[in-house]
Amino acid sequence: MKRTVIGVQQKVLDSNDQVAQANRQLFAQHHVAVLNLIGSPGAGKTTLLLATLSAMSARMRFAVIEGDLATTQDADKVAALGVPVYQINTDGACHLSARHVARAVGQLDLAAADVLLIENVGNLVCPAGFDLGEHAKVAVVSMPEGDDKPSKYPGIFARAAAVAVTKADLASHVDFDVARVRRDVGRLNSRCEVMVVSARTGRGMQAWCDWLARFAAACRAPGQGPAH
Amino acid sequence: MKRTVIGVQQKVLDSNDQVAQANRQLFAQHHVAVLNLIGSPGAGKTTLLLATLSAMSARMRFAVIEGDLATTQDADKVAALGVPVYQINTDGACHLSARHVARAVGQLDLAAADVLLIENVGNLVCPAGFDLGEHAKVAVVSMPEGDDKPSKYPGIFARAAAVAVTKADLASHVDFDVARVRRDVGRLNSRCEVMVVSARTGRGMQAWCDWLARFAAACRAPGQGPAH
Repeated sequence: MKRTVIGVQQKVLDSNDQVAQANRQLFAQHHVAVLNLIGSPGAGKTTLLLATLSAMSARMRFAVIEGDLATTQDADKVAALGVPVYQINTDGACHLSARHVARAVGQLDLAAADVLLIENVGNLVCPAGFDLGEHAKVAVVSMPEGDDKPSKYPGIFARAAAVAVTKADLASHVDFDVARVRRDVGRLNSRCEVMVVSARTGRGMQAWCDWLARFAAACRAPGQGPAH
Repeated sequence: MKRTVIGVQQKVLDSNDQVAQANRQLFAQHHVAVLNLIGSPGAGKTTLLLATLSAMSARMRFAVIEGDLATTQDADKVAALGVPVYQINTDGACHLSARHVARAVGQLDLAAADVLLIENVGNLVCPAGFDLGEHAKVAVVSMPEGDDKPSKYPGIFARAAAVAVTKADLASHVDFDVARVRRDVGRLNSRCEVMVVSARTGRGMQAWCDWLARFAAACRAPGQGPAH
């Protein structure tokens, strides 16, 4: 039984990787930089994304894919900013797959975008294992979640190009040691950038936006990928 | 391909349900009430569990199973309270299975426990679909996560006997509408009890502990299950 399951899972991943590869080629053709935002439910992914769009829409053109089990609440908020967005409802599935993304990009005008932000289903575990064809994964973890997350959920932190520590406006109300997070992430992944942000107060948003702009420029440079 | 995957998933669930049924019989034999705590990473499951043990250990005898991807941090905290605990490391798997629990209960003295608390892997999605043989699932959602969680992650809220809204000490620092949560949970599951708690200040802990004691007594009454 166990061998059968592993066999099929392997096929599912192989098939996912093939579609991810096709997505990647499409993104390269259109010179669009693609980030896959992964974090727990309520980590602040949507709020960070909305603040990023508000801060950077004058500098570059965005498109967004929203992944949720149910509802279009997040996509509605993005659309209200006038940014092209496609909502995927996974109908209970715990992560986005490359096929979900392939379907979504078919509905978006990639030629009109510099950066595609994909907000994954709220889940710190499963999305980490699925390549969507993105240039990088960004882990989003909020201060109220606690500073033990990189040690307890290492998979995503080992694979992320950056970690956004969100809800820094709550810093004085929760026990959260940023140094511990930097240390634990550094052990898993020495090239990962850890940034502390608050979309509410604006703290750290400039550094986050600058990182995103640099990363996107590196992805979009012809024949070059980013350092990560 | 799709049919193959669904076929195998169905077998995995069938096999899980068989082991869950055996777990359930074992729990009944030992008159132990079993709760499965499910919530996002950082929702406050461990903190609620530790506060519950501290408040109730004089009234009833507990045992604990801790589920994590990695580390024994949570089990260490439970053991420090002198409560029997077994740590499961799922090695990357996103939920506990009935088999994990069967293995763990083999290492615990069920005859010496009135209540077994199982803390699932931090994940608001996948654990909802797996019966462990428990009497009830409890959904744990923290105020900083936001009041949209029942509508966006309906699976667990539709199945839970109770919802603990945690970190109520942060109520004045975050936007969280308890009435919205009650309304959205009520739509999914009219018999579900929604309780607002703060392990830090003690707010709501008496009501939570009273609910737990009533629920456990109903589970443990010979020939009777709880209302849920």
